[in-house]
Amino acid sequence: MKKQLYVLQDILGTNQKIAQEIKSSCEEKGVLVLNLMSSPGAGKTTLLEKLAERLKDRYRMAVIEGDIETERDAERIRAKGVPAWQITTGGACHLEAKMIARVLPSVEADIDFLFIENVGNLVCPASYELGERIRVVLLSTPEGDDKPKKYPKAFTTADVLILSKADLLPYLPYDLERVKKEALDLNPRLRIFVLSAVTGEGLDAFVEFLAAARAALGPAHA
Amino acid sequence: MKKQLYVLQDILGTNQKIAQEIKSSCEEKGVLVLNLMSSPGAGKTTLLEKLAERLKDRYRMAVIEGDIETERDAERIRAKGVPAWQITTGGACHLEAKMIARVLPSVEADIDFLFIENVGNLVCPASYELGERIRVVLLSTPEGDDKPKKYPKAFTTADVLILSKADLLPYLPYDLERVKKEALDLNPRLRIFVLSAVTGEGLDAFVEFLAAARAALGPAHA
Repeated sequence: MKKQLYVLQDILGTNQKIAQEIKSSCEEKGVLVLNLMSSPGAGKTTLLEKLAERLKDRYRMAVIEGDIETERDAERIRAKGVPAWQITTGGACHLEAKMIARVLPSVEADIDFLFIENVGNLVCPASYELGERIRVVLLSTPEGDDKPKKYPKAFTTADVLILSKADLLPYLPYDLERVKKEALDLNPRLRIFVLSAVTGEGLDAFVEFLAAARAALGPAHA
Repeated sequence: MKKQLYVLQDILGTNQKIAQEIKSSCEEKGVLVLNLMSSPGAGKTTLLEKLAERLKDRYRMAVIEGDIETERDAERIRAKGVPAWQITTGGACHLEAKMIARVLPSVEADIDFLFIENVGNLVCPASYELGERIRVVLLSTPEGDDKPKKYPKAFTTADVLILSKADLLPYLPYDLERVKKEALDLNPRLRIFVLSAVTGEGLDAFVEFLAAARAALGPAHA
């Protein structure tokens, strides 16, 4: 048991060092890095497809996709005219900073946003920084309003909580105030957005948040 | 890297040995053990609540709940008059056989079904047998029809696939035939059930499957 613990500490320490290097080098170039975490199917890729449409006139963006298998998500993003790199972990349940570091030299330097879509998993990715300035956790409404305290680390370490698939609210037993309160109890710093990528409801507010966050790094490249 | 690999192999080998012991000792007593795996919020606990109602006249059942934090799921099961034990992993992303072995002495021997609800995670639990005779993976319809090949291990190692939350199908872009085909391409042995625990649609077929699987271990205890 002790052996495992030492190995894990070593992995996490090395990961954090690489993540810090990624963060510094990206921010120097005016690249805002975001790490999107959620369960499978919470709508991360659909949100990125919609952001591609909303951001394209004002900004340049790129996406790194993390999945266990398949190139599907990167293909969806490329179909929107956005450069995308697929990392397939081949079984591993989360992305690590060293995987991002290997892809970064291929990513153009004059982008404004680098979105990293993590492997669909509400647990393990929360332990690994990837160089992000903003960590976003998505929780889709069909997953239920009781999840933050059952899976706390994703919520305590995030900057932003997106309650996604708001268009399904009329068909679900779901207490929006309960889930917000539970998440804020865990992490009072959380910025919460309720949105539907399908209908576009709530998307404007999130786009404006992104614009303000990017502005803190200087003028846009586009 | 090698060091990590050796440690992992050691963990998995030990786990499988304990799982085999659990399986043998439960089946000798006529206890059918099932391991339920899925992402958070796919409806595992709601399904168990409904099974409690459907099985109570013919069988005795018990539930072991796995969660990272909170006793919530065990409380929901107990409210249905079914004995339930909550394992909180305190951060760990999956249950292991040794956790089940610690709880088993408290579980009555003359039950017919022992349902183990794993931590909500479509990735990591798939690597750990818990002593189950039947491994069930749930995939809720809002998670999307493209998930089996993106998260293959849960599907290749399962005996049963439940496509849950079928009541939401009218409101979703979802191709039922696509998801079935993709899952069967990975694992032709899979028994697939489409159901809604909320409306009860499709539940009868799964209950009859459970009854037949339990009959293979001898007469029921109830």
